[in-house]
Amino acid sequence: MTSPAVTLAGAARTGDRRALGRLLTEIEARTSTGRAALADMYPSAGSAHLVGVTGPPGSGKSTLVAALASRVRKQGRTVAVLAIDPSSPITGGAILGDRVRMQAHAGDAGVFIRSMAARGHAGGLALATLDAATVLDACGFDMVVIETVGTGQGEVAIASLAATTVVVQPPGLGDEVQALKAGLLEVADIVVVTKADVPGADQAAGALRAMLTVGAQHDRMAGDRPRPTRPEVLLVSAVEGTGVAELLAAIDRRAPGAAGDRRDAARFRDQALVRAETQLLGLVEERVRTRMQSGEARSRLNVEAQAVAAHEADPHAAADRLLDLLMGKNGE
Amino acid sequence: MTSPAVTLAGAARTGDRRALGRLLTEIEARTSTGRAALADMYPSAGSAHLVGVTGPPGSGKSTLVAALASRVRKQGRTVAVLAIDPSSPITGGAILGDRVRMQAHAGDAGVFIRSMAARGHAGGLALATLDAATVLDACGFDMVVIETVGTGQGEVAIASLAATTVVVQPPGLGDEVQALKAGLLEVADIVVVTKADVPGADQAAGALRAMLTVGAQHDRMAGDRPRPTRPEVLLVSAVEGTGVAELLAAIDRRAPGAAGDRRDAARFRDQALVRAETQLLGLVEERVRTRMQSGEARSRLNVEAQAVAAHEADPHAAADRLLDLLMGKNGE
Repeated sequence: MTSPAVTLAGAARTGDRRALGRLLTEIEARTSTGRAALADMYPSAGSAHLVGVTGPPGSGKSTLVAALASRVRKQGRTVAVLAIDPSSPITGGAILGDRVRMQAHAGDAGVFIRSMAARGHAGGLALATLDAATVLDACGFDMVVIETVGTGQGEVAIASLAATTVVVQPPGLGDEVQALKAGLLEVADIVVVTKADVPGADQAAGALRAMLTVGAQHDRMAGDRPRPTRPEVLLVSAVEGTGVAELLAAIDRRAPGAAGDRRDAARFRDQALVRAETQLLGLVEERVRTRMQSGEARSRLNVEAQAVAAHEADPHAAADRLLDLLMGKNGE
Repeated sequence: MTSPAVTLAGAARTGDRRALGRLLTEIEARTSTGRAALADMYPSAGSAHLVGVTGPPGSGKSTLVAALASRVRKQGRTVAVLAIDPSSPITGGAILGDRVRMQAHAGDAGVFIRSMAARGHAGGLALATLDAATVLDACGFDMVVIETVGTGQGEVAIASLAATTVVVQPPGLGDEVQALKAGLLEVADIVVVTKADVPGADQAAGALRAMLTVGAQHDRMAGDRPRPTRPEVLLVSAVEGTGVAELLAAIDRRAPGAAGDRRDAARFRDQALVRAETQLLGLVEERVRTRMQSGEARSRLNVEAQAVAAHEADPHAAADRLLDLLMGKNGE
């Protein structure tokens, strides 16, 4: 009756960190064991606050996340961090990162830190990360932080799948413009200007607030659906330890079930629905990709790709043929 | 007999820039007119050299691409640039960028510059960009440059779909490490250290060469499939105009049909096959996504998403049900 997946899930839930680590590896590898464990754990999930933290390289994200985690722990709550680390075969970045990060919280069972390797995932990284967050949620962590390195669309997309998205921005002339260009501010629920101790941080925060005001006006003029709310802009100095409590308070105001007005509750529900649709579309595509790379479809894909590479076939016509093949294999 | 798509394609091919612009808009919007025009133009494509240029923000990509385009023009060849611009509703970045860029080459029919808006494309941007490159190829441009802003996985993926990928890296303490972390060096055929006129550029190039050597050794030790070749590292100063000719020569050595040894030719064919498979998988997924968002699938997606958002359904089980629905709609 008890499958290995259910045993693993049970052990992870009772605080067995090795079991949790193994389970997350199964989730990352998209195995059937991971899937079965997820199905078993899903009903227990739903109470953790999923927080995405993203920003450009060198913005001080990791330091901020560490400070935030310490603050959460001081209040007696537990926190798990999923760090998306564009790893390299050269540095083995993800593993190294884990070790460095673990030291500050070594021996504290209320903190769990795990790097997700970006390598080899392509579009599936967001899905694997969400599944890993569900596992951590079911294991009882009060807050699950998804930290994404980088400023690319993919990384931004992952952070924006969290219930609350924090965009980290270092103070620096013109960096606000880069943030705008990368579409970062559009997904932000909270914008944090880090390094509040250095000169220019106040001005950077002011510039960001001004931009966000102009953006809200532009939305109205362009007839775009206005963004749910204008994000808060907060100043944090991880070095001096200022602003972290305010950041945590701002995050907590957006927690599932947080006391807020009814408009907020309806808005959070709408956002959760959009996120669920995005996740489901991603999971359907992941299944299609897997089917395309096995059995008859795999060899047909190869044949079509050869014709396309040789400029003998129109890729769109080839894609139509592959889709027909996939659809014909109903029930396989 | 002559569809609007074929008329548009014909006009674009004979040098009508307004028709070309309209056609690219159809391609970006993924319309049936765009599809039909592509099918018509595909057989004429295949001789342009598709060059991806990517690198972190502020690395001098745009300046480098402008210098490269001028060099190509001096040799009497034609060049088109597709600039991927993570645009914002606030700045309207893409359009502004086009105008600024066009000025240097205004009135020169041998240069065509077009910004592709990253907004709203999600995973589809790479597909739209490849289709746009095919159109420009069929219109007779000798070189098509795809310039991607940003350092994210998505942007890197787009640039790496080109036949030749140039990674641009500014000289700066530690920036090489960021490039490694972002997985940039792994997709590079050629690495360009820009701003060769500033102090430290030589050291940066040296550090990159050393890293790439270590990487190649690591691959061997780890038993990974070695990368095709170690990328060349070149120094360019767009300000002083040095290194651009060498860069163009390095690019030309990788052109389709370039004289090289047989091992190179076989390697280029293998790489083209991998790129074609990636494109086909993307196009199949794009079709699945479109189908999921129309008709009965659309409402079922909404119902399932509500259950998932309310934590009443396991997203994986919901995705399986949606895929079954899609497969059952065979021949629709």
